[in-house]
Amino acid sequence: MKLATLKTGTPDGQLIIVSPDGTHYAPAPIATMQAAMENWAEAEPKLRAVSAFPHALSPDQLAAPLPRAWQWLDGSAFESHGELMQIAFGLDPIDTDRPLMYQGMSDRFYGPHEDVILPSEADGIDFEGEFGVIVDAVPMGISPQEAMKHIRLVVQINDWSLRAIAPIEMKTGFGWVQAKPACSMAPFAVTPEELGDAWRDGRVCLDLAVDWNGQRFGNANGAPMAFGFHELVAHAARTRHLVTGTIIGSGTVSNANFREVGSSCISERRGIEMVDEGAPKTPFMSFGDRVRMEARTAEGGLLFGVIDQQVVAALR
Amino acid sequence: MKLATLKTGTPDGQLIIVSPDGTHYAPAPIATMQAAMENWAEAEPKLRAVSAFPHALSPDQLAAPLPRAWQWLDGSAFESHGELMQIAFGLDPIDTDRPLMYQGMSDRFYGPHEDVILPSEADGIDFEGEFGVIVDAVPMGISPQEAMKHIRLVVQINDWSLRAIAPIEMKTGFGWVQAKPACSMAPFAVTPEELGDAWRDGRVCLDLAVDWNGQRFGNANGAPMAFGFHELVAHAARTRHLVTGTIIGSGTVSNANFREVGSSCISERRGIEMVDEGAPKTPFMSFGDRVRMEARTAEGGLLFGVIDQQVVAALR
Repeated sequence: MKLATLKTGTPDGQLIIVSPDGTHYAPAPIATMQAAMENWAEAEPKLRAVSAFPHALSPDQLAAPLPRAWQWLDGSAFESHGELMQIAFGLDPIDTDRPLMYQGMSDRFYGPHEDVILPSEADGIDFEGEFGVIVDAVPMGISPQEAMKHIRLVVQINDWSLRAIAPIEMKTGFGWVQAKPACSMAPFAVTPEELGDAWRDGRVCLDLAVDWNGQRFGNANGAPMAFGFHELVAHAARTRHLVTGTIIGSGTVSNANFREVGSSCISERRGIEMVDEGAPKTPFMSFGDRVRMEARTAEGGLLFGVIDQQVVAALR
Repeated sequence: MKLATLKTGTPDGQLIIVSPDGTHYAPAPIATMQAAMENWAEAEPKLRAVSAFPHALSPDQLAAPLPRAWQWLDGSAFESHGELMQIAFGLDPIDTDRPLMYQGMSDRFYGPHEDVILPSEADGIDFEGEFGVIVDAVPMGISPQEAMKHIRLVVQINDWSLRAIAPIEMKTGFGWVQAKPACSMAPFAVTPEELGDAWRDGRVCLDLAVDWNGQRFGNANGAPMAFGFHELVAHAARTRHLVTGTIIGSGTVSNANFREVGSSCISERRGIEMVDEGAPKTPFMSFGDRVRMEARTAEGGLLFGVIDQQVVAALR
């Protein structure tokens, strides 16, 4: 099942059910994604019962599938990403066998075609292609095995990042505030069974194609997470109940053969350049630049739809 | 004006207006605190027009004044707190002239008398007495001077912290997730003019009395913040719009004369013990322990009411 949210001028928009090919939709019998998540046991059969999709869908109509969430916790589960970021940031290796995770801004997620408004190119504007999951209410202290049952939806995310600020904030130990503005989400949130064999051990085993201004930048696969999403959920719930609609991110999708598949963020490529050539040469984004992200199934379908958006300067 | 929220079994409760002495209330003509904040220009005069408080108020009826928020950004603006925490955690000094701030869990704030449910005493359970402000919608890139005008309410917070986990998470640079479970709020959110002369330069210039199991633990004053709340708001809004109802915290109230006034968290006292005696001796909290926090005005009034609650073990 594919779900999405129409922009309506309200913060939560209107929940819709999307046809398997992503071209048409039906209004959902539940007003919003958050409301559906809060009563999933009742909502899911009602949503699955919809089989006619009378309306043509344009991605421009879409908000993020969950346009705001009470909680966004983003992991960093791809080891090659971490290694390259430490090089790019000039930081010591992070010595931990625990999942890495930060709490991010959750009150607004951009829709897939919305302009991303940022204050300054000098902040080092970068994209981060990721996958994520949305859970229902998760009790404190849950095991990874039990946590798996709370993963209701899978999503595709662009975690916008400001690299001139990121290492400064990291060095404080307090994590990121200014370096992590609002993220974007691809059009469709899908139930795990939509992934078929590509949903394995709590991982989205699909290539994430990332294009920057029309040029292929990366095509890394989501499989090699050091921790599966179920383990990230359990980590997040160690000392808190997770509120319904909590979004848990994978961190930037990255593979050990990054020289072949490329990267899902600019900073990683700059780290590779520092290793290979002694200095970074790829600049960060300029206003007007576009980024496109999509994940195709083995059959060629666009599972989550397409993120395709530009960064624009905030009005002064 | 003093505002509070009655527990109703719903996540947002029912907004009430509280008598100046904190003993009685009237139902508000707006359902919830969040709804009032979202339309403050219209809501404020309606709330201020209420002058009869027909119902007796028991603190046990109260949720946090804002029981859940779309965003909670906690500063660490007291320099003596930072210095002692670095000793307590065995970390290097944080070399920055920027405000310190992390994004915390905002989907649930405990009411002032609710039991605080945590999984393990071995996590090093600690309180952190703080002040905070609640803002309406703040545009990206705002100046500190303009940010001051968006501070609608002042609150008193207990930022529950798990000290066995905190330095481990700090060392990753990602900030705290497991080490920062849900916070608590004192009963009343007050408009800044309620503080009179105690609201100066964006600071709450009041002593915060902290008692642990009936013993005075600290009585530090909120004045010596290195950055005022307006500066913390501007810092938070550097690269994002702040959603209405964003809560910004001061960090643990701490004074340079900590040997006289005591501390607002246990970890600080342990840092002092490490300096004075070579090792920490004060243990962290046990299940069943109580903490009480209150701030009295020069006239002796309890401005925010009283936090008085115990920590209890999560059910297994």
